[in-house]
Amino acid sequence: MFPTAQSVDTLIVGQGPAGLSAAIYTARAGIKTVVVGMPPKIDGEYDIDNYFGFDETVTGSELMARGRQQAERFGADLVTERVLGIHHGMDGAFEVKTEHSTFMARSVILAAGVSRVRPGISNLDDYDGKGISYCVSCDGFFYKQKPVMVLGEGNYAVNQALELKNYTSDVTLCSQGKALTMTDDFRARLDEAGIPIIEKKVTTLEGSPALERAIFDDGESIAVDGIFIAMGEASASDFAWTLGLEREGIYIKSDENQRTNLPGVYAAGDCVGRFLQIAVAVGEGALAARQAINHVKKTAKEAAS
Amino acid sequence: MFPTAQSVDTLIVGQGPAGLSAAIYTARAGIKTVVVGMPPKIDGEYDIDNYFGFDETVTGSELMARGRQQAERFGADLVTERVLGIHHGMDGAFEVKTEHSTFMARSVILAAGVSRVRPGISNLDDYDGKGISYCVSCDGFFYKQKPVMVLGEGNYAVNQALELKNYTSDVTLCSQGKALTMTDDFRARLDEAGIPIIEKKVTTLEGSPALERAIFDDGESIAVDGIFIAMGEASASDFAWTLGLEREGIYIKSDENQRTNLPGVYAAGDCVGRFLQIAVAVGEGALAARQAINHVKKTAKEAAS
Repeated sequence: MFPTAQSVDTLIVGQGPAGLSAAIYTARAGIKTVVVGMPPKIDGEYDIDNYFGFDETVTGSELMARGRQQAERFGADLVTERVLGIHHGMDGAFEVKTEHSTFMARSVILAAGVSRVRPGISNLDDYDGKGISYCVSCDGFFYKQKPVMVLGEGNYAVNQALELKNYTSDVTLCSQGKALTMTDDFRARLDEAGIPIIEKKVTTLEGSPALERAIFDDGESIAVDGIFIAMGEASASDFAWTLGLEREGIYIKSDENQRTNLPGVYAAGDCVGRFLQIAVAVGEGALAARQAINHVKKTAKEAAS
Repeated sequence: MFPTAQSVDTLIVGQGPAGLSAAIYTARAGIKTVVVGMPPKIDGEYDIDNYFGFDETVTGSELMARGRQQAERFGADLVTERVLGIHHGMDGAFEVKTEHSTFMARSVILAAGVSRVRPGISNLDDYDGKGISYCVSCDGFFYKQKPVMVLGEGNYAVNQALELKNYTSDVTLCSQGKALTMTDDFRARLDEAGIPIIEKKVTTLEGSPALERAIFDDGESIAVDGIFIAMGEASASDFAWTLGLEREGIYIKSDENQRTNLPGVYAAGDCVGRFLQIAVAVGEGALAARQAINHVKKTAKEAAS
C-alpha cells in the first residue's frame, strides 16, 4: 500500500513555528531533515506584534512563508501531508506513516500543535479505560474479534480503522456528525476492507461495567465493545499514546531541554503546553533540534562501531 | 548621591534579545517596564541566519534596532546605563541601582547575558571562601575594620569599593592591569571617600590558612584580608550573589518557566546557560515576562487588600 520507507535523520511533525525553527537548526547542522504537516492555524491573516524582531506587525501567513523559505534554504524538505501514525521501528528508529509516504527516522521532533476535538458524548469520561480508547496500537489487542467502532471523519480515522482490522473483522467507522473529509483513495481502502461508514453522531454510551452499546442522535444504536476516537487530524497527543510518551493532560511531558521520556523523541511548541506563544515555540524548537542532532550523531557513531 | 528611587513594576536587566522579548510582553500587558543595560555583544555586524522568520540573513545590529523599536512601541522605557547592584528592598521589592538612577521594582528579570572575566591570578581558587569574594553585601560584614581591596576598572568596581566603606575604612581599588573605564563622576566619589587606586595586576595570593597578602606583577605586595572581584560590568552572576539566587557554576538556576528560587526574580537568555541562541533567549524572555506579570498582579492585589 505504501512505497518503500525513506530514511531520514530527523522527522519533524508540524510545519508551525516550533517545527520550522527546529528544522532550521537540524538542516543547518547537516542532518537530513523532513518536516511533515499541514499549514498551521497561525498561517493566516492573524496580526502578530509580540514576536521579537518584528517592529511592524507581521501577519501569520507572511511569517510562516518566511520561515518555510528559511528552512528550505538550509536543505530541509517540507512535505505538506498529514501524519497518520508513528510507531517504534527497527534498531531504535521510528516509523512515520503519512498519507502518501512512510519514513524511517532516527529521531522525531513532535511540534504538531494542540487540538481539542472532543466527540461531544455526554458520559464519555465514565467509559475511559472501559471501552474508550485513543490508540489502536496500544489497545487494539484487547478487542480480538469483538465489535469496535472508530469515531472520525478524515484519513486519520480511516487509517485507525484499517489498523483495527488486524485485530477484529467487525469494524465500523462513524463520522460523529461531521462532514467526511477523507480523500477518495482512503475511502476506497475502507470499502475494500469492508468497513461500513455510519454518518451519524453518538450522543450517549451504555453498558456495565464496560461499554456495550453506543446510542446515536436519532435514537438508534449499535453494539460495540470498543470505540476508538480519531476525529480531525492525528494530534501530538495521539502520537504520544502510540509511542508511550508521558503526558500531562493533553500535553506531552518534556523537560527544560524538550526531551520526552523516550530517547530520540523531542517535543516543542504548543503540544508541550508551556506558554502558547510563537516566541516560546521558536525557542523550544531550537532546543529540541539540539537534542535531536546529538541523538543522531550518537546513534550514527554507535551504528558505525 | 542618587535621586529618589523611581517605582516600576518590572525592571529588566539587559538590552539583548531575552530582555527585549520580555519587555515586549510586560509592556504590552500594561505593566510599567524599564529595561536597563548597555548594548549587548550581538548588537553589531554579526550575520544571523538561524532565528526563525528571517529568511534573509539579518545583522545583529539591525535585529536589535528592530527589537528596541518594538519594545518602545508598547511603552517600555529603555535606559542605556550599567546596573551596579540589586538588593532586597522594602515590602518584597527590589532596589536596583544604576550609574545615574535608583529603581524600586516589584519584579526583576535578569537577562544580562554571561561574562567570563577572570582576574588571571594563578592560585585564586585556593582562596575561594578564604578571602576571595564576589559580593560586598554578602561578605563585607566579615571584614570589619580590616584591609580589603576591590579588583576592577569600571563604575561597578567603584560602587563595590564605596559599599565596602560601610564596613571598613581600609579600602583600596586595584585596576588589575586594565585601563580604567570609570567615569569622572565615579572617580571623584572614590577620591572623596579616600580610596586609593593602584594601577597594577595581582598575580599571586599569599597567606595561611586564609588570605593575608596580594603580590603584584612588579614584585611589590599589599597586606589584605579580603579581595572583592568586580571586573568589567556587574554580571547576572554578581546580582545572583547579592540576591541569594541559586546558581549552577556561572549560570543562574531557573526552572522551565524561568523562575529562580526567589519569588519576583526571573532569569532569561544566556545568563541561564541553557543554549546560547537568540531563538532560545527570545522564548525564555516571553516565559519570564509571563511570570513577572503574574507576580506584579498578585502583589498589587495583596497590597490593595
